[in-house]
Amino acid sequence: MALDRIEAYLATRHDDFEEQLKALIRIPSVSAQPDHDPDTRRAALFVRDDLAAMGLKADLIETKRHPLVYAEWLGAPDKPTLLIYGHYDVQPPEPLEPWLSPPFEPTVRNGNLYARGATDDKGQMFTHLKALEAWLKTSGKLPINVKILIEGEEEVGGAGLTDYVAAHHKFLACDYAVISDTSQFAPGQPAITYGLKGLAYFEVLVQGADRDLHSGTYGGAVANPLNALATILAGLKGPDGKITIAGFYDQVKPLEDWERAEFARLPFSEAEFQADLKVPTLFGEAGYTTLERKWARPTCDINGIFGGYSGPGPKTVLPCKGGAKLSFRLVPDQDPKTIDRLFRAHVARVSPPGVTYEVITHHGAPAVLVNIDTAGIRAAVRAIEAGFGIKPVFMREGGSIPVVGLIKEHLGVDTLLLGWGQIDDNLHGPNEKFSLADFHRGIKANVHLLAELAKAAG
Amino acid sequence: MALDRIEAYLATRHDDFEEQLKALIRIPSVSAQPDHDPDTRRAALFVRDDLAAMGLKADLIETKRHPLVYAEWLGAPDKPTLLIYGHYDVQPPEPLEPWLSPPFEPTVRNGNLYARGATDDKGQMFTHLKALEAWLKTSGKLPINVKILIEGEEEVGGAGLTDYVAAHHKFLACDYAVISDTSQFAPGQPAITYGLKGLAYFEVLVQGADRDLHSGTYGGAVANPLNALATILAGLKGPDGKITIAGFYDQVKPLEDWERAEFARLPFSEAEFQADLKVPTLFGEAGYTTLERKWARPTCDINGIFGGYSGPGPKTVLPCKGGAKLSFRLVPDQDPKTIDRLFRAHVARVSPPGVTYEVITHHGAPAVLVNIDTAGIRAAVRAIEAGFGIKPVFMREGGSIPVVGLIKEHLGVDTLLLGWGQIDDNLHGPNEKFSLADFHRGIKANVHLLAELAKAAG
Repeated sequence: MALDRIEAYLATRHDDFEEQLKALIRIPSVSAQPDHDPDTRRAALFVRDDLAAMGLKADLIETKRHPLVYAEWLGAPDKPTLLIYGHYDVQPPEPLEPWLSPPFEPTVRNGNLYARGATDDKGQMFTHLKALEAWLKTSGKLPINVKILIEGEEEVGGAGLTDYVAAHHKFLACDYAVISDTSQFAPGQPAITYGLKGLAYFEVLVQGADRDLHSGTYGGAVANPLNALATILAGLKGPDGKITIAGFYDQVKPLEDWERAEFARLPFSEAEFQADLKVPTLFGEAGYTTLERKWARPTCDINGIFGGYSGPGPKTVLPCKGGAKLSFRLVPDQDPKTIDRLFRAHVARVSPPGVTYEVITHHGAPAVLVNIDTAGIRAAVRAIEAGFGIKPVFMREGGSIPVVGLIKEHLGVDTLLLGWGQIDDNLHGPNEKFSLADFHRGIKANVHLLAELAKAAG
Repeated sequence: MALDRIEAYLATRHDDFEEQLKALIRIPSVSAQPDHDPDTRRAALFVRDDLAAMGLKADLIETKRHPLVYAEWLGAPDKPTLLIYGHYDVQPPEPLEPWLSPPFEPTVRNGNLYARGATDDKGQMFTHLKALEAWLKTSGKLPINVKILIEGEEEVGGAGLTDYVAAHHKFLACDYAVISDTSQFAPGQPAITYGLKGLAYFEVLVQGADRDLHSGTYGGAVANPLNALATILAGLKGPDGKITIAGFYDQVKPLEDWERAEFARLPFSEAEFQADLKVPTLFGEAGYTTLERKWARPTCDINGIFGGYSGPGPKTVLPCKGGAKLSFRLVPDQDPKTIDRLFRAHVARVSPPGVTYEVITHHGAPAVLVNIDTAGIRAAVRAIEAGFGIKPVFMREGGSIPVVGLIKEHLGVDTLLLGWGQIDDNLHGPNEKFSLADFHRGIKANVHLLAELAKAAG
């Protein structure tokens, strides 16, 4: 039968799949950095060519910045349609110093592939492409209809995708959507993610004088923008870990009792979590467990801070400007636009005299919670069990995948979040990795997902 | 007579002096940056060779880091001895972007020489060398004995000089000391500086987890070192501009009534000061004027802040570490060691849980106040009048010249602070400058200073 032939095909292509993934990863498609724009385009072409090579009609769709890649197979008119989403762009690799091997030279250590983009999202996205290839190369067809949409701006707000999906909701119509851009609960314990946090990302720039000054000659006579910046940022969280912005928690949907019970049942050790991170103590919002804080409570983190002299030794400068990047992870039913307004009001309230400031909104997305009592989820459970040999658990995630909200809004479909990564994959940090065993299990699960969705609809 | 011949010599050498200064400035002797160590040494050799060329025995004195340059002329046994101090090292030129011409390519615009080190202290120091040259090349001798000591670590704490002066106080014995490393009160109004602030310079490093983390996956579960850093730094100053560290003001000597009256008499416009800096409002310690804040009240400024991602666009990282450089300008009778202890106690008190932190002391120096009713000061007043055509006013300065305290402690001598710079010379910032007219006036004042000190003692 078809699945036996596919198993044999996957075995034959095992090593080739890894080499192909490495080739994709070697392209430094850092969407945030204009210097890498040609690389980002090369990654799009790589994905398009891979889809074309398995016999699909695949195209680049231009946007204002990085192109989308689109392909489809619609040869099963009586079967449902699955939209597969992924992204070929990656986070900046900086800081470079902590990487044990170069970020864009994929290197295998202990069964893990280390590189920027290994898990987020090139490796995970590639499991879908290789599952499609396995079906097409063995059967010449797919068991359901498939639309593939791979973007290149996920790490910078996804403006191109947002515009495209809004304008082409009929063209993209589907019955299911699937994304592999999340984590398993733990090694050997795959999971289906039913909740994601939203995001509101800002940059605050503070300006003092029109030029850097000598801290002796001018110090004490004019406000220092870095002292002012610290004042603005310090007030964001109280000593109890709660965000102090007026109204910030007003729209937060409380955790359900069943969720708190489910999270508490999961094999999670706060002591091991702390030991792994080597922090003197865990710290978060009072009244919640670590899993609840990570998955279901809103957070505020400064992502970067800059200004003045940071070279070796002392420099007695009174800098003229400084700034910080910071972001809030939102939970249902917080609205990014409301948070934007509340944050700006907060900065206006706490910013000290003697400086001017500017708040830039980088991007925002609402949180997501999906119903787990559906035919699609049940098909995904069976597919993961086939691929990984164990039933998945249900979890929420602290990360944000804005496209999930976009798909819900414009296509009316809840997304299946089938993540093949691990919590310690260091996505967005140095030494990002992806388990090669999970890469192959993910391909197999995706092969079965197509079959299970065909059955679910039949 | 001698002074007429010197005037003629200065006229002949006018352009050569400028070219020589430019050649010295082109050497990027950034003492804080080890990459520039060979350049810093080249600057020392340049100074030594210039002293040797005028007929003095000049030597490098090695230290643990950057050498001292020493030369002397002791041919007037019945006359007093003047110690001339200066420094050949400069501040780092960063940030480079705002410079209108390259920091180490001296460029003349509107009669000013623009370059790093133009005023601080290569240009000012050079006025002493050229005054000595003028005497020696015209008379073959000096009217008083002179010891010249030029260091290369002024911008990094001056450890080598400190050790040397402490160990060689008999060798360096003198009746007067002079330093030109301060400013005039305003263009056309030279000044003698009778008070300097001290300095206590720190770096605070904050560490969270042992690696950068994804702000979605880990946010809310562990303390963010940048949020913690903001908390530590924000509490240093209150909304009234007062430093909140317990005990910080305990040793502060209040301004004398005559000083407040003198400062109030000086032609200083707070409105013009604010307009020049383009700040929305001046800001400083409540209850004091701008000149009092600048000259006679202790201050706290963050000099640099760093951590996480500061490249273009957003990056949702939860950084593992961050830090800040910050410094206090001290006034009499604050003790840097006491401030060090108080600051560390403050950080220990305000630092939040979940992170570790480290406080590094970069350097410290006490403030200085000198008696203005002395023969040396009266000689300096006459010399400045001869060089600039106008009597100097008396002022204090917000900057720190630790060597002044060192000279007082080990050689028992108050230093004459005869500054030829201007307040807006941007020393330590981009587009540092020095008026070429003041350069030549300074040389002439220094020529007269030697003659006046000979008379003062005669």
